[in-house]
Amino acid sequence: MRDLRVNGERLWSTIVETSRFGGTPGGGVTRLTLSDEDRQARDWFVAQCRTLGCIVTVDEVGNVFALRAGRDSTRSPIAFGSHLDTQPSGGRFDGIAGVLSGLEIMRTLSENRVVTDSPLELVNWTNEEGSRFAPTMIASGAFSGIYTTAYAHGLKDRQGNTFRGELERIGYLGDRPAGDHRLAAYFELHIEQGPILDQEHVTIGVVTGAQGQRWYDVTVKGRDSHAGATPMPTRHDAMLACARVTDGVNRIALNHAPAGMGTVGLVEVRPNSRNVIPGRVFFTVDLRHPDAAVLTLMHEEYAELVSWVASETRTEIASECVMDLPPTKFNERCVQTVRAAAEGLGYSHRDIVSGPGHDAVNVARVVPAAMVFVPCIGGISHNEAEAARPDELVAGANVLLQSILEYDRQLSA
Amino acid sequence: MRDLRVNGERLWSTIVETSRFGGTPGGGVTRLTLSDEDRQARDWFVAQCRTLGCIVTVDEVGNVFALRAGRDSTRSPIAFGSHLDTQPSGGRFDGIAGVLSGLEIMRTLSENRVVTDSPLELVNWTNEEGSRFAPTMIASGAFSGIYTTAYAHGLKDRQGNTFRGELERIGYLGDRPAGDHRLAAYFELHIEQGPILDQEHVTIGVVTGAQGQRWYDVTVKGRDSHAGATPMPTRHDAMLACARVTDGVNRIALNHAPAGMGTVGLVEVRPNSRNVIPGRVFFTVDLRHPDAAVLTLMHEEYAELVSWVASETRTEIASECVMDLPPTKFNERCVQTVRAAAEGLGYSHRDIVSGPGHDAVNVARVVPAAMVFVPCIGGISHNEAEAARPDELVAGANVLLQSILEYDRQLSA
Repeated sequence: MRDLRVNGERLWSTIVETSRFGGTPGGGVTRLTLSDEDRQARDWFVAQCRTLGCIVTVDEVGNVFALRAGRDSTRSPIAFGSHLDTQPSGGRFDGIAGVLSGLEIMRTLSENRVVTDSPLELVNWTNEEGSRFAPTMIASGAFSGIYTTAYAHGLKDRQGNTFRGELERIGYLGDRPAGDHRLAAYFELHIEQGPILDQEHVTIGVVTGAQGQRWYDVTVKGRDSHAGATPMPTRHDAMLACARVTDGVNRIALNHAPAGMGTVGLVEVRPNSRNVIPGRVFFTVDLRHPDAAVLTLMHEEYAELVSWVASETRTEIASECVMDLPPTKFNERCVQTVRAAAEGLGYSHRDIVSGPGHDAVNVARVVPAAMVFVPCIGGISHNEAEAARPDELVAGANVLLQSILEYDRQLSA
Repeated sequence: MRDLRVNGERLWSTIVETSRFGGTPGGGVTRLTLSDEDRQARDWFVAQCRTLGCIVTVDEVGNVFALRAGRDSTRSPIAFGSHLDTQPSGGRFDGIAGVLSGLEIMRTLSENRVVTDSPLELVNWTNEEGSRFAPTMIASGAFSGIYTTAYAHGLKDRQGNTFRGELERIGYLGDRPAGDHRLAAYFELHIEQGPILDQEHVTIGVVTGAQGQRWYDVTVKGRDSHAGATPMPTRHDAMLACARVTDGVNRIALNHAPAGMGTVGLVEVRPNSRNVIPGRVFFTVDLRHPDAAVLTLMHEEYAELVSWVASETRTEIASECVMDLPPTKFNERCVQTVRAAAEGLGYSHRDIVSGPGHDAVNVARVVPAAMVFVPCIGGISHNEAEAARPDELVAGANVLLQSILEYDRQLSA
């Protein structure tokens, strides 16, 4: 069993093959959660798991669970997985690498007739990205008791479609209550989405935790008026306010270098006409730091910034915190299992704190969890150009496989 | 003839009645140029002019001319008018007040059986606003030899529809070459779209000219990457660049107070997702000043700003000047005709320089021209809440009527 390895070529060709679900001309993937493209990927995934003899169930927030029986059916399953949804202009690896590595592990175990003591469960979490329905990671959050199912169901996209309605539309409104079953542990493979492993030529990131993050929805109310006839001192320019907050968010992140991060990623301007002073701007703010105390400080600086900009630009700014994810430390035993697997397989590795949030961060609140990172080229992610090297991705899948098998042995010891 | 007055109630009710073409729940008008709503307004306008016995012709860029015969058909017509298209979220008066005052004058002359020496021509210019097809005032520009018809026809909206294609689709691709006939003079009534007349309680603005303006299309190319995993010093944040240019444009305008103006009105962010650093932002810049030398100085400061921001944010910024309208001085005889008409009618009046561009500014390059401003409440325009007072609008229409009659007399003297 310690010699068991995944079929690297099969894993890679599965990644290439399934990138057709929402594939873009630029080689990326546009597969927004609960879209038709997401449904195609899900249908394909369910069919593959069933072929392997897994029992597939779906919960009320659309999470898909593929259960592979173990020797002792009374035990809670050891779970692993990630997400199949992508950013509006995303890549072929973010999330997808974790689910398809999990599928490859199921395939490898089946063709080698390996039966574990504990059952194994491969999970595809709904809406990790949060780009269509904010906040992010809503369905692993519902599984972990962070959000109620009703809250998740009521979320709306920018067109007014509800999360529940879209689950129903694509046929993934399951009947299993969210979080109705215990997991023995949860492991997730993911591309790093940052530059560290790639720059340091390290194959495996042993993820010890994740930074905290706060998300804000910001609405600026000014007054739209003619760009050629409204004297500067009488303007209420909502775009000027957005610009100053954007610049200030950048400054706050730099104040807390090197770990602080601050981003304005989404901006919508009304009426959005070149000779009209914008009367209304909606935009989002994302603040991150691995230290909870510093993140709180960044929040306070941000709140001050907003009130200063509002008064300076004679606008009203309403900023609502829509997600507040504290920094996470993963379970030490799970982390050590991943570390030992990388070591045992002879791969270079280092401990790393995740910049992005992941479903594993939510799940870690109720289940021992850890993550395996593999490099992504140039650190580029959330981009069509996102890429991973086949050998490093396969190395990650083998670390995931050996972590699962070792954890299963430990539970039986 | 000096006692002739328009029917104020009819003018006002025509404004209210026709606001249904693209009317919004908020009491404004959404009538983008060459849209279905624009076609409805045009069809109605043409029918009204024909009822009055006018000969209606359309040129290749969709300008509509309604000619009313005079005693001497060898003379060039005295023209007046404005535009029926609006901003995406516009009001009931911008442009519309000028066309419908012209229609009211035609009605008044008809029912009083007045025949002028020169023919009169009421014009509805296509695409004054420029919010669907930039640049603004393209069709009065084609009439005045500033743009070729081919250039106008090739313009595309953000969806890729061409100006020519949309003219054809709504049935207003006329066969008359743009600028094929001479005008004796051109008068245009318009709301001020600024606060001066309203604040000073002056009824009539005698417009002596218009400020210069420059429009830029700006594309920032950065790199989209994950907002949680990309260290601040390695970012190429296109939104940060847009924010700093927006703030800088504001500063440049303030540097040239009180007449300088600077606005970023339209912003499009890609991929526009809250946890992705924007890799591409398209936005527009609008700079204005009544003095050509100062406007050139503002342009130079802007160019320096762009290159500084690009280097600071590690982005590429391509800024293209898509319109360069020099400051305009209207024909002194036409301006004096308007001033004398306001004086003769006993209305309070003052000379004023127009902030916005207008079709009259283009036409003034080839035809003696002037404008009549009436107050708009609070100076608000390009906004659903745009409003004018009935008595002041009617006063403006009477000034326009008497200016036309007096100019006709002068030509015969």
